[in-house]
Amino acid sequence: MLHGVPFVSVSRGERIESVHAIAACAVRVDGEVLLALGAIDEPVYLRSAAKPFIAAAVVRAGAAERFGLDDRDLAIMSASHGGEPEHVAAVRALLAKIGAQPEDLQCGAEPPGVLHNNCSGKHAGILALCRVQGSPFAGYLEPGHPVQRAILAFCERVGDDRFGADRLGIDGCGIPVYATSLRRAARSFARFATLTDLAPDDAAALARVRAAMIAEPFYVAGTDRFDTDLLRAGAGRIVGKAGAEGVHASALLELGAGLVLKVVDGTRRAAAPAAIALLARLGALDAMQVSALGSHASFAVKNVAGKAVGTVAALGGN
Amino acid sequence: MLHGVPFVSVSRGERIESVHAIAACAVRVDGEVLLALGAIDEPVYLRSAAKPFIAAAVVRAGAAERFGLDDRDLAIMSASHGGEPEHVAAVRALLAKIGAQPEDLQCGAEPPGVLHNNCSGKHAGILALCRVQGSPFAGYLEPGHPVQRAILAFCERVGDDRFGADRLGIDGCGIPVYATSLRRAARSFARFATLTDLAPDDAAALARVRAAMIAEPFYVAGTDRFDTDLLRAGAGRIVGKAGAEGVHASALLELGAGLVLKVVDGTRRAAAPAAIALLARLGALDAMQVSALGSHASFAVKNVAGKAVGTVAALGGN
Repeated sequence: MLHGVPFVSVSRGERIESVHAIAACAVRVDGEVLLALGAIDEPVYLRSAAKPFIAAAVVRAGAAERFGLDDRDLAIMSASHGGEPEHVAAVRALLAKIGAQPEDLQCGAEPPGVLHNNCSGKHAGILALCRVQGSPFAGYLEPGHPVQRAILAFCERVGDDRFGADRLGIDGCGIPVYATSLRRAARSFARFATLTDLAPDDAAALARVRAAMIAEPFYVAGTDRFDTDLLRAGAGRIVGKAGAEGVHASALLELGAGLVLKVVDGTRRAAAPAAIALLARLGALDAMQVSALGSHASFAVKNVAGKAVGTVAALGGN
Repeated sequence: MLHGVPFVSVSRGERIESVHAIAACAVRVDGEVLLALGAIDEPVYLRSAAKPFIAAAVVRAGAAERFGLDDRDLAIMSASHGGEPEHVAAVRALLAKIGAQPEDLQCGAEPPGVLHNNCSGKHAGILALCRVQGSPFAGYLEPGHPVQRAILAFCERVGDDRFGADRLGIDGCGIPVYATSLRRAARSFARFATLTDLAPDDAAALARVRAAMIAEPFYVAGTDRFDTDLLRAGAGRIVGKAGAEGVHASALLELGAGLVLKVVDGTRRAAAPAAIALLARLGALDAMQVSALGSHASFAVKNVAGKAVGTVAALGGN
């Protein structure tokens, strides 16, 4: 069963009130394990951390050329965005390029609307894949739809994995998600970092998405979001992405490695403090970069009146 | 450090996606341990699970007689209520009895206002204690204020404990909270169950609050809330109360025992499934009662579109 090691504490006053355990794995592209905590061979859902691979599957099919997609389009396709006005405008622009309407998106509405759903860019990207394939929008959430088959095949190639029906779940936005081990996921992200051990067209698609995320970090998440701030602090050498239920995944370009972690209990608040601590331990972030990410590494627990009454941070020594 | 045992799973599709560990202790009033999981001697904050004792401290000072407080008043003083119209009206009525205004409450506003704050009844109760003491409303959140000293002294007597400054935290609503071990907390709830090993006035105050919670379960939490439904299913034999960061505490009247559990990672979603599993294990809930609480024992994880994609439930065997 999924298990981990205590890694992030939530304090109140002088006391630790709650503790989050994490499982994590970092591997080089050759499979050498740089770091292993907890259950690294237990299948977990990457959730939105897999979005860059979905975007790359869309690019791989030719959608970027066909519709003239730019960095912003590809960044929002890879995003868990905050629904800020610029994000909504970006999804609207992407839909216009592919000749689709907001009503075609099946991600579900997050107030005030479907474009504000953090996954709306990914769904717009999947519609672009429908167009390139000539497959219908109808049923695009179904595992058997040609777009989902293409995305699955892409992820299987990048991960050297086969996702059977027993690994299938449904994401918050309705699309299929497949469970994979942290070790295999970390190797996928290592390949995302090195662009090696991949078929040329797959590598080119991943390179295109990676460049877009680095060029347009705001469109990957948003104001004060960890993914955006990590892309900025990483200055082209770290491409990270969060997933729901406490997932973080990073491609570490200088190390030629990937890091994937899962907060065992699924709590979002622990993911960024854990990711920063592990990235520092791996040497992927230096002290200056860690300092720049300080507001994500530790932050206050506030009461209703807004007073700081505690802190969320990696445990000492991490 | 706080630690526990894996106890509640969150599934997605056929897979466990996240796992919550709990620490828990059940003891009889004589201190006999009926159940121990994880760190039972590590101080934890009970948070709102301590509200019945705060309400009893208010009663102990004479507020119920002085202001003619009824069951509904005492239930809302002990509540983490849902801000439903009846809850807001109950707090308003309580404030009127004690000659206070909503503006006197310092719990902070939860939209749309201060009366909707889940702690507003408790704060109104503390204002009643100010009135009885003849102490000012000003500064009633401060640990040194006479009302907080009276509440602390009451909790220390019930718990046979001494709360030093190193055990002090500030709750979400601004009042002081003190950390105590699950073992000691469970004994406090055992005394709440038996009303023995207590000074007569303390026992009488606890009896009055307990009767009010049993008589007015809706006012302790609200529609479809676990605390309310547990009081109803318990039919006068279980008086339970949730606290933030995954705390549940119950007085078990038939067993003459108390149960206190803490979700180690602080996640609310795991508390009720864990509490029901442990109450069943202790024999405090029978199969019919467990069935009546089924919607709290396991419930669906839903995606944005409202489709059930997984389940939160105690792990098999619990």
